[in-house]
Parts: sequence; structure tokens; C-alpha cells
Amino acid sequence: MNSLRARIDLMVHSQVAQHVITAVIMFNAVILGFETSDEVMSHFGPLILFLDALCLSIFVIELAAKLFARGARFFRDGWNVFDFVIVGIALMPATQALSVLRALRILRLLRIVSVTPRLRRVVEGFLDALPGMASVFLLMGIIFYIAAVIATKMFGPTFPDWFGTLGKSAYSLFQVMTLESWSMGIVRPVMEVHPKAWLFFVPFILVTTFAVMNLVVGLIVNSMQDAHHQEENENTGVYRDEVLARLDSIEKRLSGLPTGQVGGPRQNGEAGD
Amino acid sequence: MNSLRARIDLMVHSQVAQHVITAVIMFNAVILGFETSDEVMSHFGPLILFLDALCLSIFVIELAAKLFARGARFFRDGWNVFDFVIVGIALMPATQALSVLRALRILRLLRIVSVTPRLRRVVEGFLDALPGMASVFLLMGIIFYIAAVIATKMFGPTFPDWFGTLGKSAYSLFQVMTLESWSMGIVRPVMEVHPKAWLFFVPFILVTTFAVMNLVVGLIVNSMQDAHHQEENENTGVYRDEVLARLDSIEKRLSGLPTGQVGGPRQNGEAGD
Amino acid sequence: MNSLRARIDLMVHSQVAQHVITAVIMFNAVILGFETSDEVMSHFGPLILFLDALCLSIFVIELAAKLFARGARFFRDGWNVFDFVIVGIALMPATQALSVLRALRILRLLRIVSVTPRLRRVVEGFLDALPGMASVFLLMGIIFYIAAVIATKMFGPTFPDWFGTLGKSAYSLFQVMTLESWSMGIVRPVMEVHPKAWLFFVPFILVTTFAVMNLVVGLIVNSMQDAHHQEENENTGVYRDEVLARLDSIEKRLSGLPTGQVGGPRQNGEAGD
Amino acid sequence: MNSLRARIDLMVHSQVAQHVITAVIMFNAVILGFETSDEVMSHFGPLILFLDALCLSIFVIELAAKLFARGARFFRDGWNVFDFVIVGIALMPATQALSVLRALRILRLLRIVSVTPRLRRVVEGFLDALPGMASVFLLMGIIFYIAAVIATKMFGPTFPDWFGTLGKSAYSLFQVMTLESWSMGIVRPVMEVHPKAWLFFVPFILVTTFAVMNLVVGLIVNSMQDAHHQEENENTGVYRDEVLARLDSIEKRLSGLPTGQVGGPRQNGEAGD
Repeated sequence: MNSLRARIDLMVHSQVAQHVITAVIMFNAVILGFETSDEVMSHFGPLILFLDALCLSIFVIELAAKLFARGARFFRDGWNVFDFVIVGIALMPATQALSVLRALRILRLLRIVSVTPRLRRVVEGFLDALPGMASVFLLMGIIFYIAAVIATKMFGPTFPDWFGTLGKSAYSLFQVMTLESWSMGIVRPVMEVHPKAWLFFVPFILVTTFAVMNLVVGLIVNSMQDAHHQEENENTGVYRDEVLARLDSIEKRLSGLPTGQVGGPRQNGEAGD
Repeated sequence: MNSLRARIDLMVHSQVAQHVITAVIMFNAVILGFETSDEVMSHFGPLILFLDALCLSIFVIELAAKLFARGARFFRDGWNVFDFVIVGIALMPATQALSVLRALRILRLLRIVSVTPRLRRVVEGFLDALPGMASVFLLMGIIFYIAAVIATKMFGPTFPDWFGTLGKSAYSLFQVMTLESWSMGIVRPVMEVHPKAWLFFVPFILVTTFAVMNLVVGLIVNSMQDAHHQEENENTGVYRDEVLARLDSIEKRLSGLPTGQVGGPRQNGEAGD
Repeated sequence: MNSLRARIDLMVHSQVAQHVITAVIMFNAVILGFETSDEVMSHFGPLILFLDALCLSIFVIELAAKLFARGARFFRDGWNVFDFVIVGIALMPATQALSVLRALRILRLLRIVSVTPRLRRVVEGFLDALPGMASVFLLMGIIFYIAAVIATKMFGPTFPDWFGTLGKSAYSLFQVMTLESWSMGIVRPVMEVHPKAWLFFVPFILVTTFAVMNLVVGLIVNSMQDAHHQEENENTGVYRDEVLARLDSIEKRLSGLPTGQVGGPRQNGEAGD
Repeated sequence: MNSLRARIDLMVHSQVAQHVITAVIMFNAVILGFETSDEVMSHFGPLILFLDALCLSIFVIELAAKLFARGARFFRDGWNVFDFVIVGIALMPATQALSVLRALRILRLLRIVSVTPRLRRVVEGFLDALPGMASVFLLMGIIFYIAAVIATKMFGPTFPDWFGTLGKSAYSLFQVMTLESWSMGIVRPVMEVHPKAWLFFVPFILVTTFAVMNLVVGLIVNSMQDAHHQEENENTGVYRDEVLARLDSIEKRLSGLPTGQVGGPRQNGEAGD
């Protein structure tokens, strides 16, 4: 039993299996693209759907094999959980109420990320950068919540479409933060009713823009330091070790030398000292 | 009396008190969120208002305790002043004329920043970055003032809504600087009356964008240097002290050695020198 | 034959030839500018067209000479291929079906880049930066494809102009990524039919903006490291070599010294050790 | 005569004179602000105009004094030329044909920059950054010219308002580059006539955005290097000089030591070498 598991483990994690899965994902991507075309579907609908189901079956079999080979350890790797969830979504029945799930089935193409080491590293790099920005994100969340409450109270009654509820206000403020039509679309109309509205929106823009700027700056500084450290450890480290080793050897040698026991040299007039 | 003050001081600055206040702020945030919903207010209005008043009372009591414990020293900490002002705003009577104060009462949720050390550091980091950008801000203020005067004189008579007064011009120029609808919304209509208007707006966009870019660059360089310094002091400092200490010890040892008193070595043919 | 080739090679790559070609390109730029003016064309049409043809002939002759001089090696230099293609486009017959080629003939002005060393370096710098960003580009391509499929499936039937086909969806999503009218122009109208559409668009904006931000950060870090390396090799390198050479010479000198052969010094009480 | 010049030179460049001029500029700024208000002008028009003329007279006198004191050397300082030009503009007669000059008179407030050392440094920093970006600017100029010619040829006949002439095309392309209404305002309408127009505009956006990004990256790298160099010269320089001086002194001392003249030590079995 265990040797079967080990053999399957080796198989599903082999280079060949990975290449096959990559090819299936890419083939599936094309199939899912065809599914959006009414014309293609009217001619080859059944074939497309069959091929799509085939691809999905291969994913299910691969995941089942991995799950069988690894057991509970399977879920320790975040990428396995990721694969499990997006394939799981694709398997859910798309009832009328959950018709959105049919569109989300396409998310299974994201498996290309978990299968390709280079893309995994990029995404892991993204995720690694997030914790360092958590404080700024939290602060922006607080600013958004407070601004949404204020906007709902002040502009909600007169502009219910934009600021009628907390959610609508948050969406409108997000739009304002991205600077999209903030003035011509939102603030100028609001100012016709509340002439002082700019006292709320302009500081909001300045503060959120400044916070976003700080996010970017933090990201740059962190990346720079990571790169700098790596380089330091490679270059400078070698040089420093070399210097210290040399100094060590010089000292060791000197500690064996006769020191100060002869009075003579002191009288030799070391003017340069 | 003094021992009472000391005891209260300890109490209000204890970990427990901080956790309680944090919980109250978060509870208050939810309450203030409910206040924006007409439906919730129509059912639980009195309860919501009572809970809100309760939260506010807790803040007032906490601040009063701190004020009593510290006396005038209370105001030396900028964050205490900050708490004092935003709780003070929440206490002001919201008369008809000052109805905006009712909305500003929500600012008291910002107390979460002064209570959470991590958020305090982020905000302090923001504020520390400001003085270094003061010159550029001043320059941008001058550019804005001059541009607003020119725009008011040139386009004010024909476009009173956008450039009728200095204030309207400044607002419109801020919109142009954020690039929001600058062309389709503002400059193209203006150019139908003043065909050469782009000679004013395009350079304005280039100059202000360049100034903002310089702000960001300055921020990045400063952050990098701070990070670099810190690292230097940690890593390089240790290494450098080590090297200098070793060289010191070598020199000390050598100064005790017999030097030059023997003529022989000089003749030993040190070609490599 | 070979000596003729060598002579032509020297001639077409001489400083003089380069200056002449630069002058011809700039003259051609003016001519092509005039061609856009109906008024100029109605007065000097034949002359303009003749001069344009003359410039083109000079380019063709120059390229033919280079091709003759270098033979197949001509195509080893990417810039030669570039010149060959854009002059080739200019030579294609502009039939009715290919009327767009007439406009693309202007691309031959890009030869100014291949002729001017400074501009070549800038473009080469741009191109060198691209491979380092390949992974992020690939990831963005995947995100775009998946998002386009989802958008086409979900919003295609109700908004055929924006999301009717995969291509239209990709274009609309590119517009959303650039934040142009994303809310007032696209998402608010979509939300009137699909109230939850923001659950798709807001994360899409956050993810793509974050990816673009990472591209910029990567570009900055790479440029910094290149600049840092270059500097290191210049400054630090010299200093380090100096230190190591000095330590070498000290060690060499010490290896010739009497070491440890005298018992005395050890008893000299070196407390500081 | 010369002593009079020297005395005037001292006087106009004294701290006091600078403070007076700064005060006059700020007073003038307020006056020029009032001039934009119809209400203020209808009540205090003559007074405002008189005070404005007074301020201008002070500037003229100051510049005349500097010109007298320094002679031709006056124009060697770029900031003096700057002052001369903007005060000269303010002196020009504002005839009907040159009514725009009346608005440009406000430019004289820019004198605050030439008078305040901190602001001068900021502007000088901006200007210093420009030459390093010359190549990229040149490249963007070429791209704009070529794109404008292509756009005029392709879209001029059907969209004369946006792409009718080279100038109109350049303006519209600048708008597209700033991403303002590029899609909903320009490209979607164009695509209704030329369905393939996105093949021109999307690459144009990508290329120009990438070029702007490179400008910013270049600016950051340059600023970082300047800051790094300065720091290097301060910190590392001192340390490095110290290390080299110590090594020097050790070597000097060693060159006076007896080396290798005793056969004994060599036989001491220095296995560690």
C-alpha cells in the first residue's frame, strides 16, 4: 500500500506529469475561450463541452492521485489547497441560483500558476510583500470606514444613488480615490447642493493618495533591501571574511614575536608616528 | 492626592485599559455604522443612540482620568491633544447651523490610531516625511496661486463656473492636476473660446506632474536612506569596529617590536617592494 | 570584389555617412509632416511627393550598400533588421485593401533611433528591462484572459458592446485597468443590471494595479542594482584590492620574521590579549 | 564710482534687502489676488492698482540697482536673467492684441523663488534632473511626431476635431497618454468608424506609459546615487582613510624589522601557512 502511494507520488510529481498538466490547462484555456463564442458553440457545442469535461476529469484524477499519495500532508502546501478549491468550484452544480459559479469555473485556469514554478515565485513574491503593508492597509480601511460614514450622513439624503448606504459610499469613495471622474462626475454635482463638499473630498483625495504613495515607497524600499542583502551576503561577505582571516593570521603570527623585550628600538626616533 | 494620581495614571495606561478602550472604539464603530441605516434606526433608534452615548461617556471618563493623572503634562503628548480634540468635537452641540458637526462626531473613531502602537508608528512615519517635502509643497502652492490668478483673469469672464473666482480656479486646477477630465471636461470646451488655452494648461500639467514626481522620488530616497543607515549601523558598524580594533592591536604589538636596529634586513633584496 | 565590399562597408559606416542619413531622416520628417496638410499638398503636392520619394530612395540605396558590404552578416545586427523592415514597409504598394500601409510608411522616421547611438542605448535599455518582467507580464496575460472569459460569460449577453466577445472584453478590461471611466462609464451602468458586478471589477482593479506596481518596483530595483554594481566595481573594487594587497604584503613580510622561537615574549604579560 | 557700485552691491544683496523684497512680493501676491475680485475692484480699484504699481516700481528699482552694481556680470547668474525677464513682462504695455500679457504680469510672483534660497535649490534640483532625461524626452518627441503624423493621416478625414491637423493630433495624443477619457472619449468613437483603431492606440499607450515609467525610474536611480555618493564621501571615506593609514603605518614599521635574516624560524614548521 505504502509503496503504491510512493510510486504514485513520484509519478504525479514527475516532470512529465507536470508538462502534461500544463498542456491540458492550456488546451482547456482555448476550449473555455471557444465557449464564449455563440457561433462556435452552435456548431461544435457538444464537442467543446465534452473536451471541457475531459480536461476537468484529468484535473480531478490528478488531484485525487496527489491526495491519495500524500494523505493529510496534501493540505499542508498552500498551492495544493489552492488547486483543491478552484477545481472544487468547477465541480459545483451550477443551479439557477448559483449561475455565477458557471463563470467562476474558468478560475481553474489559474492552475497554470501553481504548476509553473516561475509564476509561483512571482505570486509568492506578491504575497510576501503584503504583510509589510498590513498596517497601511488597516489605516486605509479605517479612513475608508470613517469617510463612508461621514459621506453617508452628509450626502446620503441628497444623493442616494452615490451615498445612500455605507456600501454605496464606500464604492463611490473608492472611485474618488482612483481619481475616476471624481470632480466632473461626483464632486461638482455634489457641490451644487453642498457648496463646501470639497472640504471633505479634497483632503480625502490627498490623504488616500499619500497613503497609496507610502505603500509603493514601502514596497520599493523592501525590495531594494532584499536585493541589497542578498548581494551583500554574496560579495561583501566574501571580502569581509577574507580581511578578518588575514588580520587573524597577522595577529597570530605577531603574538609569537618577541615584543618590547629589547630597549633599543624605542630610541630609534620614529618621527613619523 | 499624588498617590491617587499615580494609581490612576498606572490604571489608564495599563494594557487592560488599552484593550478595553480598543474594544469600545470598535463597538462604537459598529454602532455609528448602524446609525447610517434608516431601517435599523427606525427599529432600534433609541438603543443605538443610548449605546453611542455610552461609548462617548467612556471616552470622556478615560480622557478626564488621564487629564487628572497627568495634569498639564497631558498636553505635551501630541496624541493626547489629538484625542482631546476629536472627543471634544463629538461633545459639541449639533445645532442647525453646525449640523456638519454631527457628521464629524464620527472622527472619534480615529482614536483607534492613537490607541494602537502600530498605527501610531505608521502615522508618525507619514508625518516625519512631511517636513522633507515642505519646500516642494511651498513651490506647488506658489505655482497654484499664480496659475489660479492667471486662469481667473483669462478664463473667468467666459467660464465663470470653473474659473470665476480664485477659489473656483484653484479647485479646477487641482482637478486638472489629478488629470480628471482635464481635456474632454475642461480644456477642450475652453479652447473653443480661447484656442490657445492649451499653452497654459499643458505646461501646467507638465510642471505639476513633474513636481509630484519629485515628491515621490524624494520620499523614496529618504526612506531608502533611513533603511540603509539603520542597516549600516547594525552590520557594517560591527565589522568596521572589528577591523579597526584588530589593526589597533597589531599596531600596539608592533610598537613594542625592535625596528630598524639591525642593518642586515635591508640588504635582503626585497624586490617586491 | 572583397576589397570593394570593404571599401563600401567603411563608407556607409563612416561618420559622414551617418550625419548625411540623419539629415535625410530629419528632412524626410518635415516632408512627411507637410504631407498631412491639405493646403500645402494642394500647392506643392508633386514637389513634396518627389522629395519624399527621393528620401526613400536614399534609404534604399544605403541599405542596399550595407547589405552588399556585409552579406548575410547584415542581419545579425538587430538594428539592421529593424531598418530593413521599416524601409520595406515603406516600399510596399499601398493598394486599397492595404491603405493602412500608407500611414505606416511614416514609421521609417524611426530610423533616427537606429542611426543615433544615444537613442539606441535608451531603446536597448528599455528592451533589456523587458525579460526581467516577463513573468509578471505572463501573469497579467493569464489574469486578463481569465477575467475576459468571465466578463464575456457574465456581462456579454446584457452589454454586448463592451463584453460581447473575448476581444471586446479584453479591451474593456484594459480600459478598466487604466482606470479610465471605469466607474461612471462602465461599472455603474453594469451594476444597474448586475448589482454585484463590483465584486468582479474592484478585485480586478486591485490585482492588476498591484501587478503593475510590482512591475515598476522591479524595474527600479533592477536599475538600482545595475547602477550600484557599476559603482562598486569602480570605487569599492579599487579600495578592496588595495586593502587586500597591503594585507598580503604585511603577511609576506611577517612570514620572513622569527616567530615563536624565543620563549621570552610570551611571558611579557600581554594582558590586553 | 566703483566704491558707489560696491556699496550698492552690498546693500541690494544684504539680508535686510532680501527680507524687504520677500515682503513686497508677498504683499504684491495679495494685491494681485484682490485684482481678480470684481467686488473688491469696484470699491478699491484705484488703491489696488496704485499699490500694484508701487510694488512693481520697487522691483524695477531693485533690479536697476543690481544691474548698475554688477554691470554685465549681472546676466551671468541665471536667476538674475529670470528676474529680468519676468519683471520685463510686467512692464510691457498690455495693448488689445497682447491682452494676454496682462495675465502674465502675475508671473512676477515667481520672484519669490529667486529670492528664497530653499526654493532656488528645489528648482535647481529639478533643472539638474532634466539633462539626464534628455534622451528619453527626445525619444518621446519622436514617438509623438510619428504617432501624430499617422493619426492625422488615418483619422484626420473622419475626426477633424481631434486629428484634423498635426497640432490637433499631438494634443489628442497627449490627452490619450495622460489616460484622460482615452477610451470612452476618443478611442471607442473612433473604433465605430475604424474598428482596428485599438491596434494604434493601445500600443501607443503602452509605449508612452513605459517611457514615462522609465523617466521616473531614471530620476529615482539618479537621486539615490547622488544621496549615496554624498553619504559615502562622509562615512565610508573616513573609515577607509583610517584603514589605509593604519595599514600604511604597519607596513612602514614592518619595513624596519629584521626579515628572513635568521634561518631558524623557517624551520619552525608553520603548517598553518
